[in-house]
Amino acid sequence: MLGFPPGNFALYEVALSHRSSKEKFLESNERLEYLGDAILGAIVGDYLFKKYPYKTEGYLTEMRSKIVNRQQLNDIAIKMGLRKLTIYDKYNSFLKISQIFGNTLEALVGAVYLDKGYTKTQQFVHKRILMPYIDMDQLEAVEMNHKNKLYGWANKNGKTLEFELLEEQVDNGRRIFTVGAVVDGELICSGKAFNKKDASQIAAQQAIIQLGLTE
Amino acid sequence: MLGFPPGNFALYEVALSHRSSKEKFLESNERLEYLGDAILGAIVGDYLFKKYPYKTEGYLTEMRSKIVNRQQLNDIAIKMGLRKLTIYDKYNSFLKISQIFGNTLEALVGAVYLDKGYTKTQQFVHKRILMPYIDMDQLEAVEMNHKNKLYGWANKNGKTLEFELLEEQVDNGRRIFTVGAVVDGELICSGKAFNKKDASQIAAQQAIIQLGLTE
Repeated sequence: MLGFPPGNFALYEVALSHRSSKEKFLESNERLEYLGDAILGAIVGDYLFKKYPYKTEGYLTEMRSKIVNRQQLNDIAIKMGLRKLTIYDKYNSFLKISQIFGNTLEALVGAVYLDKGYTKTQQFVHKRILMPYIDMDQLEAVEMNHKNKLYGWANKNGKTLEFELLEEQVDNGRRIFTVGAVVDGELICSGKAFNKKDASQIAAQQAIIQLGLTE
Repeated sequence: MLGFPPGNFALYEVALSHRSSKEKFLESNERLEYLGDAILGAIVGDYLFKKYPYKTEGYLTEMRSKIVNRQQLNDIAIKMGLRKLTIYDKYNSFLKISQIFGNTLEALVGAVYLDKGYTKTQQFVHKRILMPYIDMDQLEAVEMNHKNKLYGWANKNGKTLEFELLEEQVDNGRRIFTVGAVVDGELICSGKAFNKKDASQIAAQQAIIQLGLTE
């Protein structure tokens, strides 16, 4: 899975350990997940920066969040076989269908980074995560998850869903948009960002949490 | 300022160029800012991970956002002398007091990364940003900016400000808290997170945008 022999085995054991399997938090993967999340963000950020030399920063930011979002990372982790390797409380049937495997993947990136350094981690992420599991062309065509997901839920449940521009302000000469997610005519949540697209994604994301649709 | 001779000068010129000074977006520092933000996040993430081997992931996340938040980075950039080096529309008096210098700093980190690689950038960030300008002990004691700032505004304007727990849900066995920022008894904004502290910070941050207090 790694493409190289691990140096520090203990590190990888921690990376694979969900907190449901350990009493002490230092033995679970949450700290490594924090580290791996940051390292993965940098590596994917660099990758996209170089792959799309003529795209704006807004475009790169959106592409990155399509790659490193929770759902996507969890799907990749399962395809990589990390579900079987993750050590967790298997009597908790909730965890089985949850998104803890994406966290394992982030923790694994953190472990590789501590074990082998940045450049090796970059190679690992390119060869073992991005190349086999991310179809950039397809990703470019896809809207971000949150809005899609919310539309899917609305369709299935016979609700109307609209995104409405609630406000436009100016900050530092930059426009700030507030977009609301409106379900059956009722304002559920709103999001603020420097463009309408991001603002509506934030609104959708908050609405998903609000409505308990996070799985 | 860098501690080493730059290799690729053109890169640094782009890093110092605010979009108000350039017609083409590729000549301004926004793409480098995107890259530098990600690299800085990784380097600071790594730094805190190693500095605080017994702290939880929540603590590390909070400390990181205290370091890499917009206000803090802008303050550091000005102390480093980046205000004078930033190329921007100086007839725009708004930009002079704005936080575009923090963006220059992020873009500079991006330029160093492209010019010299990760390890050199790490040294640059440690020696030229963290060591001289970040007092970790003081930072540990400080509450995050957003709530403080909002309290400051409320005091100055004779408003009452309260943070109220609006809801508590369970997702993946993890609790999600919704905390509202209540000004003079009126709910202004809310935030969701896995702990009350973070949720109230998000609520405060959204309220600051909502109330137009972003400077």
